Amino acid sequence: MSLIEESEVVLIGSWASMFSSRVQIALAEKGINYEYVDEGLLETKSPLLLKHNPIYKKIPVLIHKGKPICESKIIVEYIDETWKEGYSLLPSDPYLKSQAAFWVDYIDRHIFKGTRMILDSNGEEMQKGVEEFLGYLKVLERELGEKPYFNGEFFGFVDMALVCYYSHIIANETIGHFSVEKDCPKLAFWATQCMKRESVSKALSDPNKICELFIEYRKKAGVED
Amino acid sequence: MSLIEESEVVLIGSWASMFSSRVQIALAEKGINYEYVDEGLLETKSPLLLKHNPIYKKIPVLIHKGKPICESKIIVEYIDETWKEGYSLLPSDPYLKSQAAFWVDYIDRHIFKGTRMILDSNGEEMQKGVEEFLGYLKVLERELGEKPYFNGEFFGFVDMALVCYYSHIIANETIGHFSVEKDCPKLAFWATQCMKRESVSKALSDPNKICELFIEYRKKAGVED
Repeated sequence: MSLIEESEVVLIGSWASMFSSRVQIALAEKGINYEYVDEGLLETKSPLLLKHNPIYKKIPVLIHKGKPICESKIIVEYIDETWKEGYSLLPSDPYLKSQAAFWVDYIDRHIFKGTRMILDSNGEEMQKGVEEFLGYLKVLERELGEKPYFNGEFFGFVDMALVCYYSHIIANETIGHFSVEKDCPKLAFWATQCMKRESVSKALSDPNKICELFIEYRKKAGVED
Repeated sequence: MSLIEESEVVLIGSWASMFSSRVQIALAEKGINYEYVDEGLLETKSPLLLKHNPIYKKIPVLIHKGKPICESKIIVEYIDETWKEGYSLLPSDPYLKSQAAFWVDYIDRHIFKGTRMILDSNGEEMQKGVEEFLGYLKVLERELGEKPYFNGEFFGFVDMALVCYYSHIIANETIGHFSVEKDCPKLAFWATQCMKRESVSKALSDPNKICELFIEYRKKAGVED
C-alpha cells in the first residue's frame, strides 16, 4: 500500500478546478486534515485517479479510508454526513435541504456551461454568451435577495457551490468585457463576504492564473490571436 | 385556496414521463396518499406548474403542505427524509448513500441522453446511438453484477432511478432494433424482478403507448416516414 493510500483522507484535485476548490472549502469548514494530490492539467491521467474514478476519470475524488467518492456535490454531502461534528454544511430540515440541492443543481447546470460559452467564443457569439450567463446570475441574485447567504444567516452548501466559480468568473469578466458588480451588485457583495472566510480564500485559485490559462486555451483553440 | 392546494401531498406529473414515474414509485413504496395532477403533453404549461416550478417549468413537482419540491432525484430524497417511517429508499450509511447518488447521477446523465439519441436519429447515426446507449447499459450491468438490486438485497434509490426508464427503453428497442436482453441479460432479469413490485408496475407507462408517442414524434421531426 502506498503512502497516499495509508492516509485517512486524500483529495485528488487540480489547482485550476472550481470543483476541486468546492471540496477544499468543505474540508476546511469541517476542519478535516487531508493529504492533497494535484492531478495537474495534463491530458494523461494519473494511475491514482484512474484507479479511484474509473468511470469518469475526473477530479475531484475524495479517498476516505481507501474508499473513493466522486463528483464534488456528492463529496460535499458525504463530508457533511460523515463528519457530523463541527460546522453544518447542509440544512438538516428536509425542505430546506431540497431547496439547497435545487440551487446547487442549477449552478452546476448553468454557471459551468456559461463560463464555457464565453471561453469558447468571440465576437457576437461571445456577446450572446455573456448575456445568457448574466441571465443565470440574475436568477441567482434574485434567489439571494436580501439574505447574507443563500440559506439565510449562515454560509452553506449553495454558497460554497457558487463561490468556487469566483476566480473563473473574474477571468471571464476580463475575457468577455462584462462586470458582475454592475449587473448583479448583491451577488458581488455576497462574494466579497464569502471571500472573508479563510476556507474560501485559501481554496480558490488566483484569478490572474486562471485568466492566463484561459488566454492560452483560447489561443490554442483559435478563438483568440 | 384551491382544492388542489388544500391537499397535503400533490404530484404534478405526466403519464409519459419517466421522472414522474420515479416519484410515483417512491410515493408508493412509502405508502403515501397523494393527489395526482397530470400536466399532459401540451406545449402550454398549466398555471399550477408555472406557479410551483417557475425556474424550469417542468414536471414532476411535488407539493407538500403548499411548498413545492422540483427535480425527481431531489424529490425522492425529500420523500425519504420526510416520511422516515416505512420503507427506506436511500441507504443511511454515508458511503453507500454517496455511491447510490453517483449511480443515479450516471443514469440521468447517460440513459436519458441515450434514449433521446436513438429517438432523434435514423440510419447509421441511429446505429451509433444504439451502440453508445448499450455501452452505458453495460456499465450499469457490470455495477449490478450478481446482486439482486443495485444497493444489494433491497430495492432502492438506484433501482427506482433506472427502472423508471423501462417503458421508454422497450419503445427504443422497437424503434432502434436492438435487444437489452441479448446484450445485458442481468439487467433484463433485474428489470423483470423490479416489475413484480406493485409500486413499479403501477407507476410505469404502457410501453406500447410510449412507442406510439415516439413514432408520432419521429414523423413530426421528419426522421421517420
